[in-house]
Amino acid sequence: MGPGPSDVNPRILGALARPTIGHLDPSFIQLMDEIKVLLQYVFQTKNELTLPISAPGSAGMEACFVNLIEPGDTVIVCQNGVFGGRMKENVTRCGANAVMVQDDWGKAVDTEKVAAAIKANPEAKVLAFVHAETSTGVQSDAATLCKLASDNNMLSIVDTVTGLAGIEVAVDAWGADAVYSGTQKCLSCVPGLSPVTFSERAIDVIKNRKTAVQSWFLDLNLVMAYWGGGAKRAYHHTAPVNSLYALHESLCIVKEEGLQASWARHRRNHLALRAGLETMGLSLVVNEADRLPQLNLVSIPHGIDEAAVRGQLLNDFDLEIGAGLGELAGKVWRIGLMGYGSNPTNVRLCLSALENALIKQGLAIAGGNAIAAANAIYAASE
Amino acid sequence: MGPGPSDVNPRILGALARPTIGHLDPSFIQLMDEIKVLLQYVFQTKNELTLPISAPGSAGMEACFVNLIEPGDTVIVCQNGVFGGRMKENVTRCGANAVMVQDDWGKAVDTEKVAAAIKANPEAKVLAFVHAETSTGVQSDAATLCKLASDNNMLSIVDTVTGLAGIEVAVDAWGADAVYSGTQKCLSCVPGLSPVTFSERAIDVIKNRKTAVQSWFLDLNLVMAYWGGGAKRAYHHTAPVNSLYALHESLCIVKEEGLQASWARHRRNHLALRAGLETMGLSLVVNEADRLPQLNLVSIPHGIDEAAVRGQLLNDFDLEIGAGLGELAGKVWRIGLMGYGSNPTNVRLCLSALENALIKQGLAIAGGNAIAAANAIYAASE
Repeated sequence: MGPGPSDVNPRILGALARPTIGHLDPSFIQLMDEIKVLLQYVFQTKNELTLPISAPGSAGMEACFVNLIEPGDTVIVCQNGVFGGRMKENVTRCGANAVMVQDDWGKAVDTEKVAAAIKANPEAKVLAFVHAETSTGVQSDAATLCKLASDNNMLSIVDTVTGLAGIEVAVDAWGADAVYSGTQKCLSCVPGLSPVTFSERAIDVIKNRKTAVQSWFLDLNLVMAYWGGGAKRAYHHTAPVNSLYALHESLCIVKEEGLQASWARHRRNHLALRAGLETMGLSLVVNEADRLPQLNLVSIPHGIDEAAVRGQLLNDFDLEIGAGLGELAGKVWRIGLMGYGSNPTNVRLCLSALENALIKQGLAIAGGNAIAAANAIYAASE
Repeated sequence: MGPGPSDVNPRILGALARPTIGHLDPSFIQLMDEIKVLLQYVFQTKNELTLPISAPGSAGMEACFVNLIEPGDTVIVCQNGVFGGRMKENVTRCGANAVMVQDDWGKAVDTEKVAAAIKANPEAKVLAFVHAETSTGVQSDAATLCKLASDNNMLSIVDTVTGLAGIEVAVDAWGADAVYSGTQKCLSCVPGLSPVTFSERAIDVIKNRKTAVQSWFLDLNLVMAYWGGGAKRAYHHTAPVNSLYALHESLCIVKEEGLQASWARHRRNHLALRAGLETMGLSLVVNEADRLPQLNLVSIPHGIDEAAVRGQLLNDFDLEIGAGLGELAGKVWRIGLMGYGSNPTNVRLCLSALENALIKQGLAIAGGNAIAAANAIYAASE
């Protein structure tokens, strides 16, 4: 129940362990085609260039930046947590210029500030932002931000590593140009792959670059020839065959449940956890409107040794919750309710384990019964 | 029995499917420490910076180049197959200058030519070559090439994707500076990881770069803080937890068998396959002295529809062998005997299946009994 990797469904672990076949085997190519269609479903897009990068989310991020950006370009980067900072690193390593729009950690991206930054930097080519900030548990208004980009003839790069399948991701409706995610969050698959999708507008930019993409491994001009090559695929790199079995299975599970049902489940379990935490006297960090249901940031009560609490949860309950990152280190816990791990059993386990740990730390837990409060949410939603 | 991914040992598939835990969990960090020591064993090195890159072999290659090379550098690249060409791509995408030393596909790197190229390019910083060429089944003289580099104050970058655990890889004895491999060849692990190792001299170069590494994901200054951070590891990217379980298991298996025993097994099965193929009248492409035992290039007899033969092996025998790549496309088959897949059962299956397919193609198989010839090799080695 940390910020990911999340608990992996045993069905997915079973798929992962299937015998490895060749990455150019006709059966494997059929599986790749199915993965593409299933990813189009979860991203809600018709984008042809929709595929999993054969490496973790940070490589998916890098794939978006190195393919769309050339030296000398200007990119407006919104930062309201760790991952906006990583975007900036990517921009400067492309030899491009990053114009930063800063918001407090724990707040959503301020669309007014972004509009002003676009006005002040008419040469900017790309707007990059994080839809679902894993370091702060905040969601930003992707629809408005993507529209700001396209209204100003800019491309948009969207990080939804923690968003996909947990909250609405609507690539085509947003008009987003390059979107990346991870497999180890609300897809509940193993870590190590990064689903990405690119609009036609983005593909045009990639195909008409003046300079070569600085990464051979992530050059989508080459990757396209493998993933998009139909029966006659060009060898690029050896695909991570077993991880792709697992991704296929995880996407089938999302399809079986239905995207909307998956979002609703994530929200329901979040509300139950919240009710329990508040009954204990704990409070969530993020404004209600901006909260990610799949990643709950809890303020650490005064005087509590936060690492000791996490240690006790891990050692006594075999339960992992996340520490704060960056500016929020030592100030918050991050409790994930992602994918397969977003279920009532986990909510109840976490509430009772946390109560136990806080009492051991000498905290006088404010009255009420956390489990009963959570159960009331479930009863009301039946 | 293609050029990889090779057959994965069921023990490794079992490890792969273990429940996913957090990438900062103390148990996982212990596993990472063990992987490092086991990789030092198979690479035969004491290099501190020895770890698996969280992406396939091509990303391991890229990690070596982007970390050691800066814009304006000169790199001598030996090409005798596909992967020397990929090295050149990496060099030019780093803004550096590639001086090519070309040898025929199917021949080893000519060390005399390399010595001449070094003399003609005294400014060269790095010598890059492929120890075990997956496209041609050729091994080159890594000890001599690394010595040429170090005698001339150059760094060496060595591709041993197909070499590791199949033939001797002796990083410290060679004095190699940056070596990368893959998990899906003679380690018989799933594809998707790239073990790498860097000398102290290489680390000095990386730490004293004038420019930032162009890849954030592959920047070893950052990766070191995660893999080398001891108990206090800095988060860099989410490690591919399950694939690392599998790598750990595969390295344990190599350790149990012993490196020397693994090389001897690869050689024995190669000799048995060779005896059978020659009995059928087929011939190997590569000079005996330069052959990789784990990857056997077979000349396609005149008049044979090579794709039909591969198709029949796949459809009738569930057996994959590889096609030729690049200059060798249509001229050769590539038969892998790698890791777990290097065993007498596979040798016999391949010989009988190939004989069957060639007879169907109307080839008059030259007398003798291929299986008996292979068995004679096994009997002689008992």
